[in-house]
Amino acid sequence: MRMTALDRDALQKELEEAQKAYRTYQKMDLTLNMERGKPCAKQLDLALGVLEALHARSEFANSRGDDCRNYGVWNGLPEMRAIFSDMMGVPAEDIILGNNSSLQMMFDCISQGFTHGYVGCEPWCRQGEVRFLCPAPGYDRHFAVTEYFGIQMIPIPMLPSGPDMDLVEHLVAEDPSIKGIWCVPKYSNPTGITYSDDTVRRFASLKPSAPDFMIMWDNAYCVHDLTDTPDQLMDLYSECVRYGTLDHVLFFASTSKISFPGAGVAALGASPKNILALKKRITTQTIGPDKLNQLRHILFLHDINGVKELMQGHRAILAPKFQIVLDTLERELGDRNIARWSNPRGGYFVNLDVMSGCAKRVVELCAQAGLSLTAAGATYPYGADPNDSNIRIAPTFPPEEELQQAMDLLCVCVRLAAAEKLLAKRP
Amino acid sequence: MRMTALDRDALQKELEEAQKAYRTYQKMDLTLNMERGKPCAKQLDLALGVLEALHARSEFANSRGDDCRNYGVWNGLPEMRAIFSDMMGVPAEDIILGNNSSLQMMFDCISQGFTHGYVGCEPWCRQGEVRFLCPAPGYDRHFAVTEYFGIQMIPIPMLPSGPDMDLVEHLVAEDPSIKGIWCVPKYSNPTGITYSDDTVRRFASLKPSAPDFMIMWDNAYCVHDLTDTPDQLMDLYSECVRYGTLDHVLFFASTSKISFPGAGVAALGASPKNILALKKRITTQTIGPDKLNQLRHILFLHDINGVKELMQGHRAILAPKFQIVLDTLERELGDRNIARWSNPRGGYFVNLDVMSGCAKRVVELCAQAGLSLTAAGATYPYGADPNDSNIRIAPTFPPEEELQQAMDLLCVCVRLAAAEKLLAKRP
Repeated sequence: MRMTALDRDALQKELEEAQKAYRTYQKMDLTLNMERGKPCAKQLDLALGVLEALHARSEFANSRGDDCRNYGVWNGLPEMRAIFSDMMGVPAEDIILGNNSSLQMMFDCISQGFTHGYVGCEPWCRQGEVRFLCPAPGYDRHFAVTEYFGIQMIPIPMLPSGPDMDLVEHLVAEDPSIKGIWCVPKYSNPTGITYSDDTVRRFASLKPSAPDFMIMWDNAYCVHDLTDTPDQLMDLYSECVRYGTLDHVLFFASTSKISFPGAGVAALGASPKNILALKKRITTQTIGPDKLNQLRHILFLHDINGVKELMQGHRAILAPKFQIVLDTLERELGDRNIARWSNPRGGYFVNLDVMSGCAKRVVELCAQAGLSLTAAGATYPYGADPNDSNIRIAPTFPPEEELQQAMDLLCVCVRLAAAEKLLAKRP
Repeated sequence: MRMTALDRDALQKELEEAQKAYRTYQKMDLTLNMERGKPCAKQLDLALGVLEALHARSEFANSRGDDCRNYGVWNGLPEMRAIFSDMMGVPAEDIILGNNSSLQMMFDCISQGFTHGYVGCEPWCRQGEVRFLCPAPGYDRHFAVTEYFGIQMIPIPMLPSGPDMDLVEHLVAEDPSIKGIWCVPKYSNPTGITYSDDTVRRFASLKPSAPDFMIMWDNAYCVHDLTDTPDQLMDLYSECVRYGTLDHVLFFASTSKISFPGAGVAALGASPKNILALKKRITTQTIGPDKLNQLRHILFLHDINGVKELMQGHRAILAPKFQIVLDTLERELGDRNIARWSNPRGGYFVNLDVMSGCAKRVVELCAQAGLSLTAAGATYPYGADPNDSNIRIAPTFPPEEELQQAMDLLCVCVRLAAAEKLLAKRP
């Protein structure tokens, strides 16, 4: 039953049905949350071994003899850098470990551009107005960082192959005030797509007119597969080596969604030239990251195989949740022609596009019935979704029965908002 | 035997004796280190309970029910903020917890001034040349932070009562480009002195012409007493409340020298207005600090009494080391009139002033015989000690027998350098 094809009476009936269902949910006094990409408690239990690790060890030295309790080792323990090297496709010697937050490392890298500049250029704060490309829908916290520094954000449409590279190439060639682009190249937040080989190659061979243009390559979901046929992301590092463009990329990853969101380990990869500049900053900023937490992770994960095994455990918990989301969307909205959604092979989100002009209303309806969603528009720079249609579904945190309830309610709200919208347009 | 009173022949003899002793040390192929204020392994063992804490706990929620493994709680766990509140004399609600480094929090606060400004003023990066007062000798890493941002540093002499407040008051009243001052108010690094009540009051009642002047109050050694008659630092927070000047102070502390230097917890205290501004920055920069590590500390320390008890253990290890330093200085240099030194009641350093123009030579001689000291001049902005006389002794890290050897060697080098210097001046 395509709602868009219904006459006024049929739409009115549809609206009343949806309203009735909605009122039932309102009476249930629900408190449901699909707001953020938070792992659930069961996932966190998978990594409890991280906390056992140091207990079983009477010494606190890593293989190089550093007492990990004390000061020092500014770039982190070599064994942990080796694990990130395999995850990120960046040589271990070009990786710097941070504390628990890759977002903090990204913020600091933007701050570094703002206060000190990259590759010998003037700091961005001395270059007048500067701009950043923001593939959208994208990650709201990325956009918040560039907004914090007053960097003007230009939205770039997301295609099934990644950001619209025709537009990216055109803009960066024309405008030297464009200083970088935010990317989540694998299982992108929120669309779930993985950049195509062609897109990766076009990033590696990009010819920006700004010599201090930086690609913020946030590989947050690099090992977060949910199927037997995971997406394969082409290795940007090697491509950049080939094109001689490595100085224009900063690579990020973390174990936030591998071990613990609040107590994982974050990493930054860069060209030797950028590592040297960032070393100056980081060794001024701190005497070193938390090495005991790195040691815990090393003793628990051992190597990339330990990571892969652990991620199988995450998949076993998450795949059924994603299935609930997809099944419910298909069952409730599949033939109605009022929404489209993604079917990602990994990552943390399902991307839902409702009818233009309806996303805010859907999120509002959900909130009034006790379901918190990511704010409508949050996936766009300045919170401005031009179509008011994008909703990010984060199914990982709620237990399955709550998730089912939340999805049922969400679908009712999508139908209700669509009916309101279609009726308003009919004579 | 006052060396300064010796005639040329007697000095020559003194030089030869010192050279002979020095050559003996050179042949011993020593590797000794008194470079940094690092706790020793025995001190770190005192806090091993921090690592046991979470093992004994099957749940990971603090008293408020937050799952400390997950994202969230941007300003840190309330129980840990309460411990810092007692340490720092700042209300718990005005404390933000960071990760393992208070230096990082200071860097970020200077960065915040540079990129965004304080109390509604223009960012420092848009105000032309800005300046910072640097009581010297002081902490080299403080100076490195202001230098990194191109902030011009003005050295302020350290008196027995703290920084020369006549000069501080005069300069800040005259010059609106002076944006702040670095302070280690208790057991100051490296002089070991504690600011007098009068000095604290004069800081609280300071009238800078810059409305965005910030006192960086780094209370790194607030509970690091080494005697039964510890120094008492007047409570700056209360004084500032009385004078209405709280917006001009940022308070810092950490457990780096309480639990683990590499894996402790750091804290920042500020006025409600500044907390609000910093909240905007910090919640853009990260989703939250490592709460599991805070939970470990809470379970191990319980409260301020746990901190005090632990510090008794540190004192038991450190007091004998400080005694070795002082005894050796007194025995070898006591009557020679070529050096003065501090006798601190706490903290991490003994401050040694050798004859003018001799500090670099002493450090060089020590290095050539296998003893690493903090670089001469490091305790002054830009590494420039105007008298070339200040040497920072960091006795905490080496075991006692190594420390004794290091101090014997250091005293030989001080005598040797003084003899060289005095001979060069004689006809």
